Amino acid sequence: MLFFTQCFGAVLDLIHLRFQHYKAKRVFSAAGQLVCVVNPTHSLKYAPARCAAAQTSAEQGILPPCHHHEAVHDPQLVPCTCPLFSCPWEGHLEVVVSHLRQTHRINILQGAEIVFLATDMHLPAPTDWIIMHSCLGHQFLLVLRKQEKYEGHPQFFATMMLIGTPTQADNFTYRLELNRNQRRLKWEATPRSVLERIDSVISDGDCLVLNTSLAQLFSDNGSLAIGIAITTSKVHNAEAEM
Amino acid sequence: MLFFTQCFGAVLDLIHLRFQHYKAKRVFSAAGQLVCVVNPTHSLKYAPARCAAAQTSAEQGILPPCHHHEAVHDPQLVPCTCPLFSCPWEGHLEVVVSHLRQTHRINILQGAEIVFLATDMHLPAPTDWIIMHSCLGHQFLLVLRKQEKYEGHPQFFATMMLIGTPTQADNFTYRLELNRNQRRLKWEATPRSVLERIDSVISDGDCLVLNTSLAQLFSDNGSLAIGIAITTSKVHNAEAEM
Repeated sequence: MLFFTQCFGAVLDLIHLRFQHYKAKRVFSAAGQLVCVVNPTHSLKYAPARCAAAQTSAEQGILPPCHHHEAVHDPQLVPCTCPLFSCPWEGHLEVVVSHLRQTHRINILQGAEIVFLATDMHLPAPTDWIIMHSCLGHQFLLVLRKQEKYEGHPQFFATMMLIGTPTQADNFTYRLELNRNQRRLKWEATPRSVLERIDSVISDGDCLVLNTSLAQLFSDNGSLAIGIAITTSKVHNAEAEM
Repeated sequence: MLFFTQCFGAVLDLIHLRFQHYKAKRVFSAAGQLVCVVNPTHSLKYAPARCAAAQTSAEQGILPPCHHHEAVHDPQLVPCTCPLFSCPWEGHLEVVVSHLRQTHRINILQGAEIVFLATDMHLPAPTDWIIMHSCLGHQFLLVLRKQEKYEGHPQFFATMMLIGTPTQADNFTYRLELNRNQRRLKWEATPRSVLERIDSVISDGDCLVLNTSLAQLFSDNGSLAIGIAITTSKVHNAEAEM
């Protein structure tokens, strides 16, 4: 009986996902766009806990602490890069993708334009919604984070980071687009490198920022659809032409 | 001597404005765009004080109170429409434009696309930056407001309102665009009617919202340039075609 109940639950979930997928496709009407349903990663610990782990290693002479980023001896070593709040992982740039896929089961998607459909926006902060995006020969990380920068006032922060160096990141432009109920919000910027850490991007406010009320205006039944596009930036094109 | 000092000050101001104008033109490179330098209107009183004035009138049987908007007997009478924090003015839709021009010396500009250059962004909240925009046969009001929706955390709210009815407002789409340092933020929506009151638009969060950090990223030397465009909305076009 329990088996049948679970099966029925799974079928209902599939129908729900299919319905959300259809709705997101309707919103972003461009033909052939890939819609990816992204479930939240609710964190039990807060970021400083992760940094504290690195701090302990640093005190033991293994690694410099998180907040002295400029003092990293091996520039390819990535302290606190894993954007998940509770993960103490550290490693080289080359293995960030496999860490995210294997340890956190984060999906990797192909295509220059995709739709990121974040579910369960009502969950309390801190919460992350994450996917990887393989495009133009590189891997990007899209992070949507719900966080209380000011206590009692959760906000949503969305940004795209290149799993690569800051110099490589300068060659690209990413665009995030919300579109619902005759309202449209677009954010365009150069992606940051994962070496620069997601926490500092959010504390700088250098990303798409949404108040809860604005997020609700763009949400549909608790899900937020974000259209994503990545292009090579004009500077890069101009240099290539020279 | 005082006269010469004042003259010199005025010349310096003119040079400064000219420089800001040039910079805004450079940011929004479209040829022929009108750049309007908008100085802040720093308010001494807070909005509820204004509403309290209307409340008093209401108690005397003259007008319904601000927060019972649906109970307005004369739909053409505009309580609390003047968006300036400290102004207790009330009146009919037809005289809103002349009130804003004469009492508050708010400029009115022509053209489908203009650049709104708000100066002195550092001033404490509450502060308003306002212009009127005459376009497509109607007058619009652009309001940029610095306000502490949450105490100690000022934010900037920008919106466009039609000096007309909500039905008339539905025929238009407005776009606000910030563009600086390889970052671009665009907000597109249907303007609200001034009958709906600026305060409720801001408390709903149904406008372009900027944290202080994001506003600083887009500011240049304390001034924020906002590109504005108004078009007739597609719904209206489709109806016209039928």
